[in-house]
Amino acid sequence: MKLTVLRLGHRVGRDIRITTHVGLVARALGADEIVLSGQYDKGIINTLTDVAERWGGPFRVHYERNWLSFLKRKKEEGCEVIHLTVYGLPIGDAVRALRRSKRDKVVVVGSERVPSILYGLADWNVAVGSQPHSEVGALAVFLDRFFKGGELSKEFHGWMLKVVPQKRGKRVMKITETASCRGSGK
Amino acid sequence: MKLTVLRLGHRVGRDIRITTHVGLVARALGADEIVLSGQYDKGIINTLTDVAERWGGPFRVHYERNWLSFLKRKKEEGCEVIHLTVYGLPIGDAVRALRRSKRDKVVVVGSERVPSILYGLADWNVAVGSQPHSEVGALAVFLDRFFKGGELSKEFHGWMLKVVPQKRGKRVMKITETASCRGSGK
Repeated sequence: MKLTVLRLGHRVGRDIRITTHVGLVARALGADEIVLSGQYDKGIINTLTDVAERWGGPFRVHYERNWLSFLKRKKEEGCEVIHLTVYGLPIGDAVRALRRSKRDKVVVVGSERVPSILYGLADWNVAVGSQPHSEVGALAVFLDRFFKGGELSKEFHGWMLKVVPQKRGKRVMKITETASCRGSGK
Repeated sequence: MKLTVLRLGHRVGRDIRITTHVGLVARALGADEIVLSGQYDKGIINTLTDVAERWGGPFRVHYERNWLSFLKRKKEEGCEVIHLTVYGLPIGDAVRALRRSKRDKVVVVGSERVPSILYGLADWNVAVGSQPHSEVGALAVFLDRFFKGGELSKEFHGWMLKVVPQKRGKRVMKITETASCRGSGK
């Protein structure tokens, strides 16, 4: 089962930090990839790709100009589309049903104005609480519940940086590239 | 048991949306209040207060210029201080222990650079995963686990706006103020 996060409606400048946080949450909490939409923002793609390269993967970062075509294509391929929205049904029931399904999933997080067509297109409109919320927070809770917390002990492969948990202070392991063999003959 | 979220290191302009999301997550996921620190930002205080007035409470918004004095005072009053940081101990063990304690709690979420004194001052340095993360997402997962999901069905009192969960579309109940009685005698 593959889980993709689709971020709608990015605006260069205004949304840079929120979209980055959506991407970091997606990776840290077990999604396989993030698909960015809205305005094309090379900076965010680079930031998230760079995190995956240094801290490990696999985690892929894509951009799709036409999110609606992307979602329709995914549905045709058999994916379930889950739209996180404050107006949807409570997360508890939805997650229980979703965890039983082995189909690939696309979790959609919007920005302030989500086109109404999405509510009809989504297989699930899921509310992480019915209060004004943060799409970053809602995505985090959804993924944590969907993966039952197991995502937090996931191993990231090919890391160059890794945190070693500490009661106090900071400890980071770092792999630095060794010089390649130059055939010195010694 | 009272739970306060303390947000460190706000910068006017740059952090406005992330700090707002921290505040929205705090309220939506069951904290009793948020204390803002860093640069004073009247706009965010107004935004969060306004949300609590329209969507219900109780939820208080404060500002503290000196977060260190605030934390020391809280510790003297018997509060537990929980610092959410990628470098800390895994959330699973910490939450189990914290849920057994009935002491008031302050959950601290930092910005990019957290002064090292905080690691020593905190009773708990807790990691919501050891990967580069979002303080908004980390706070959301922490609160959801701490309150065991019960926070999502919490009733907010005195609301003027309330979402009615829907499978598709949006439905919001709204209480509009009725004209006060003017003693027309009719």
